[in-house]
Amino acid sequence: MSKFLKKCYSSLEAYVPGEQPRDGEYVKLNTNESPFPPSPSVINAVNSGEVMNLRLYSDPTAKDLKNSIASLYGVGSENVYVANGSDDILNFSFMAFSGDKGEAVFPEISYGFYKVFSELYGIKSEQIPLKEDFSIDYKDYLNKNKFIVIANPNAPTGLTLSLSEIEEILKTNKDNVVLIDEAYVDFGGESAVTLVPKYDNLLVCMTFSKSRCLAGARLGFAIGNSEIIKDLELIKYSTNPYNINRLTLVAGKAAIDDNVYYVDRCKSIMENREYTINELKKLGFFVTDSKANFVFAQCDWIDGETLYKKLKERKILIRHFSTEKIKNFNRITIGTLNQMETFIENVKNIKEEMI
Amino acid sequence: MSKFLKKCYSSLEAYVPGEQPRDGEYVKLNTNESPFPPSPSVINAVNSGEVMNLRLYSDPTAKDLKNSIASLYGVGSENVYVANGSDDILNFSFMAFSGDKGEAVFPEISYGFYKVFSELYGIKSEQIPLKEDFSIDYKDYLNKNKFIVIANPNAPTGLTLSLSEIEEILKTNKDNVVLIDEAYVDFGGESAVTLVPKYDNLLVCMTFSKSRCLAGARLGFAIGNSEIIKDLELIKYSTNPYNINRLTLVAGKAAIDDNVYYVDRCKSIMENREYTINELKKLGFFVTDSKANFVFAQCDWIDGETLYKKLKERKILIRHFSTEKIKNFNRITIGTLNQMETFIENVKNIKEEMI
Repeated sequence: MSKFLKKCYSSLEAYVPGEQPRDGEYVKLNTNESPFPPSPSVINAVNSGEVMNLRLYSDPTAKDLKNSIASLYGVGSENVYVANGSDDILNFSFMAFSGDKGEAVFPEISYGFYKVFSELYGIKSEQIPLKEDFSIDYKDYLNKNKFIVIANPNAPTGLTLSLSEIEEILKTNKDNVVLIDEAYVDFGGESAVTLVPKYDNLLVCMTFSKSRCLAGARLGFAIGNSEIIKDLELIKYSTNPYNINRLTLVAGKAAIDDNVYYVDRCKSIMENREYTINELKKLGFFVTDSKANFVFAQCDWIDGETLYKKLKERKILIRHFSTEKIKNFNRITIGTLNQMETFIENVKNIKEEMI
Repeated sequence: MSKFLKKCYSSLEAYVPGEQPRDGEYVKLNTNESPFPPSPSVINAVNSGEVMNLRLYSDPTAKDLKNSIASLYGVGSENVYVANGSDDILNFSFMAFSGDKGEAVFPEISYGFYKVFSELYGIKSEQIPLKEDFSIDYKDYLNKNKFIVIANPNAPTGLTLSLSEIEEILKTNKDNVVLIDEAYVDFGGESAVTLVPKYDNLLVCMTFSKSRCLAGARLGFAIGNSEIIKDLELIKYSTNPYNINRLTLVAGKAAIDDNVYYVDRCKSIMENREYTINELKKLGFFVTDSKANFVFAQCDWIDGETLYKKLKERKILIRHFSTEKIKNFNRITIGTLNQMETFIENVKNIKEEMI
């Protein structure tokens, strides 16, 4: 840290992304990426013609991409905001919607970035513990009178709230934005986008990084009441108007327009998830009923960190969190069936060694 | 604006980017883009292999790109920060380096975004008027004891400070960051990067948008003392760790590695600028001695806004600012010689109509 840094940031603990090994030698099940490439139409959209156009700024209004998203989700384009990854949307939302007192509520165990954003903006955060079974009790979020953020499915548990539970939260917090982070919704969750016309305090946040196989393109979007969307645009035009590059804009539009490809890939992930859950259970694991592209698992015969390390030695990367309450768990991204068979085979071998 | 937006942002006046017409029918001389495509090696770098890799997150450390930049500029990679456009770097710098009292100094007439960042973060900004001849008086910036931001060349004037003048500012403001915004330095300015080893309070900010023909790729970089760079990384990892997408990372690296291509293109721009300045002077314009890829000009026979409008009718876009002190000027981006001849021809015709 330099002596020039504003003191309020000096004790900031930044987010620590999952390992990103630069060689391709790992079976990479640690950062919830898709094992599938983007669709052929995305590959075609990023052509040398568009690369030639890179001399010109990208469209700051992202009109074509917004229109495609609006059409797929049955909303108006004025209900859509797009950004350089959904982290950017979460960042602006914590900045803009935490109220004049700077308050936020989110689950104690969830996407780790919520705590970082709270620290960054000096927000007093109420972090509500999960239930014993790692699920969220929606009743804990009623009548909070504060900015509420819930990942649905939640991470790293993969567990979901029902739409009627989310509706109760929306109804009892009418003076504050309720942000539903649906990064993982396409793998079996139920999207709250259908509630947008009914609740002006709902903001649904989604990403192209998981179900749309575009983590490396950096693209996220949000759907909500047009007034909330205007607020996000105001922050964007006050920080970085050209927030999305030209190639990502065309890739994102092609990905949305080729929806069937992605729905099929999500089906494969869901099948591979069921295979993985069943096999892990056979090996003595407790596994949450995940509706995401990852599973969250622990067992009695090996602790979370040791399993993570032993798999890494075998060139398989999974995600371990040191957080006390979940330190015995690991989060395993669902890859291809072949990758999951390799993973299960290696866990079997480790178990044989241990017992 | 929604009722949920934090009050401190309710009167924010966002930055207004130059017009970005979606059709290609204009001679576009309004947003300082390059008229030349990126180099062939950039086109090759963004290939379908890398598009296939978009399923994976980009390298958050941007190691390869940083190494290339470090090598070209003769600094260590720990002295390099890269971001989603240089606006992102300016944003973080205003956030991080305005001191515990939140203060900043910059020229009254300069890149319009400095005022927006100040407003956004509630920074008390001292905006120092330019001299009569539109140049910056470096003596106005000595012993300020505040965060200082100077565009060199300045925008929209194109006028420069010498390195010895910048050095005086650095020497007399040792407790604060002095940010030199060198977006336009490659068209005839002198970079302050050579001063980085000597001054731990210097941050030099550059962009791929102008001289490197990659405005639409969104890529900026900064060079400074490693401790300042660490501060920027801290903010990045607390907001959006994967801030640059995969395609831009490879495009940027290829652009740096193919430096000769860009040096040649900058030479053309400088030649076309001299042509434009001479022709405008023949038509009765006062033109500043610009060292950037634009000229800043006014005349007695037509006011700035009328000239802008009459050129727009003729499908030529230039940039007009409504700011009182410069409202009679226009900023004209330097394009190809052919584009500049078309521009001059049309100004001639307008003059004939007027007189």
